[in-house]
Amino acid sequence: MPDKVLIYSRLPRSMTQRFAAHFDLLDAVGKPVEEMFAADELAQVRALITAGGTPLRAADMDKLPALKAIICYGTGYDGVDLKAAAARNIVVGNSPGANASSVGDVAMMLLLATMRRLPVVDPYVRSGDWAAAKPSPLMKPPMGLAGRKVGIYGMGEIGRKIAARVAAFEAEVGYFSRTRYDDLPYRYLPSLDALAEWCSVFVIAVRAGTDTNHVVNADLLAKLGADGYVINISRGSVIDEPALVAALKSHAIAGAGLDVYETEPHAPSELTKLPNVVLTPHIGGNTQESHVAMQACVLANLTAFFAGEKLPYEVRCTS
Amino acid sequence: MPDKVLIYSRLPRSMTQRFAAHFDLLDAVGKPVEEMFAADELAQVRALITAGGTPLRAADMDKLPALKAIICYGTGYDGVDLKAAAARNIVVGNSPGANASSVGDVAMMLLLATMRRLPVVDPYVRSGDWAAAKPSPLMKPPMGLAGRKVGIYGMGEIGRKIAARVAAFEAEVGYFSRTRYDDLPYRYLPSLDALAEWCSVFVIAVRAGTDTNHVVNADLLAKLGADGYVINISRGSVIDEPALVAALKSHAIAGAGLDVYETEPHAPSELTKLPNVVLTPHIGGNTQESHVAMQACVLANLTAFFAGEKLPYEVRCTS
Repeated sequence: MPDKVLIYSRLPRSMTQRFAAHFDLLDAVGKPVEEMFAADELAQVRALITAGGTPLRAADMDKLPALKAIICYGTGYDGVDLKAAAARNIVVGNSPGANASSVGDVAMMLLLATMRRLPVVDPYVRSGDWAAAKPSPLMKPPMGLAGRKVGIYGMGEIGRKIAARVAAFEAEVGYFSRTRYDDLPYRYLPSLDALAEWCSVFVIAVRAGTDTNHVVNADLLAKLGADGYVINISRGSVIDEPALVAALKSHAIAGAGLDVYETEPHAPSELTKLPNVVLTPHIGGNTQESHVAMQACVLANLTAFFAGEKLPYEVRCTS
Repeated sequence: MPDKVLIYSRLPRSMTQRFAAHFDLLDAVGKPVEEMFAADELAQVRALITAGGTPLRAADMDKLPALKAIICYGTGYDGVDLKAAAARNIVVGNSPGANASSVGDVAMMLLLATMRRLPVVDPYVRSGDWAAAKPSPLMKPPMGLAGRKVGIYGMGEIGRKIAARVAAFEAEVGYFSRTRYDDLPYRYLPSLDALAEWCSVFVIAVRAGTDTNHVVNADLLAKLGADGYVINISRGSVIDEPALVAALKSHAIAGAGLDVYETEPHAPSELTKLPNVVLTPHIGGNTQESHVAMQACVLANLTAFFAGEKLPYEVRCTS
């Protein structure tokens, strides 16, 4: 009999069907598990698949008394209480790097589309306003990317993908992360504030956690200045969203490109009305190739777990 | 008394004001010159500034009997009849390379935004459809750029900027141009057809002329296939627009990102209704930095011309 695996987050069937060939899937379709399944069924669940951003706290774990493996679909695991998992001898796995290129591409798309104001210029063509010689939304040409100082917050696998891309656009790359990497050809700034002072384009690629919560706040945004841009492909929690909206409205910064939001799938309505933002629905890792790669990590983690082996992609609790 | 210079194309005042400090500008604001100025005034015009795509044929030149210099604002000079100019001893100048980085950036923006379907996903967030859990426009994940074969048609200064950028996205780069460059690390394909057979993402960066007119036609588009994309930042004349619209409608190719059109500023209405295109209003070179660089070329050309010297940025008639 195949092992039971709970699908804890709301994940499209197309993303989980590959696992059905190997496991007996209990799909909670993102609803509370106790509403979807009987207690005796939940008591048999030893492993679950979750999206890393979905909250999974001590009390949630305690609804699954046999749970011993939390496997995150994707790079993130910020929703998982790692201490609570460790205290219950639950191992946590993720899919590191599998989506890094794909997320790096979306970061660059957001950066370029925000600086070149794609959300207003594409409609200018489609509406016929261009043909009718109506005033262009780009009366003042934007700045180009060549020669710009682009600061990357976080230099993990995704940060590196973004840095390599940005450098090809002839921009200067600087970064701040907990670790300074002497093998990287980019300028290291010793603090988040120093990075914000140095750059005008600020890209968030840091792993989210309690230590990064709302660190991109009004003070930091003010440092970027009126020609500043914020790009976020990490997690919404890193940004103080009301402070960002205020900075965009007052033109304290020039624009923002966001793939992630504090409370997904809800983007604040004040944000969605702004012309100087580009908004995407958390599509960073959403390519065919990165799904295949992420699924391979999930499958490898689950297979190892049920074989009683160490997870090949294990998340360690460091605090 | 300052020399008279005719502004032949419709160019925003912000783009020409730098020249007013040096020359007496006659601005035709894009209208027929004989309607705007008296014949004796036009008879004094020895130099004009034009956008390279604006038609400037023998008959147009003959309205300006003293004309001896045509200075193009930008890289292109496809609107200028070089033979007619040569026959009249009129020198032609342009602004080579000044906008290459800026155009390269827009090519990448169009490529990424088309593949990731930005024109449908940004409205999905803004409309509240994402928050309401309505079906995503990306039910089928798109392909990523890493590992994709990207073919570049034309390997001048702009083609090289695009190639360098594409390579940083971990895609394979191939190209076809009249010249094979052995110093470039990209795959050379011996013909346009071979390039289209090889690649799935096709980027047009060729200098437009009579030899490139409508070469991107139904046959070539069919070679790209159902996962194929066309990006054009060169000139609209290179594409057979009705064939492109048909290929996009029938899903013979997946999408197109266009900054240029056959009859600007008119984008065909059949094109502007399509969801699988990204359309920008010829903004490739429209950054602060590239305007400054293009204006420097224009000014250097005009100054040399009126000093009786050779143009520093001269276009040679090769046929």
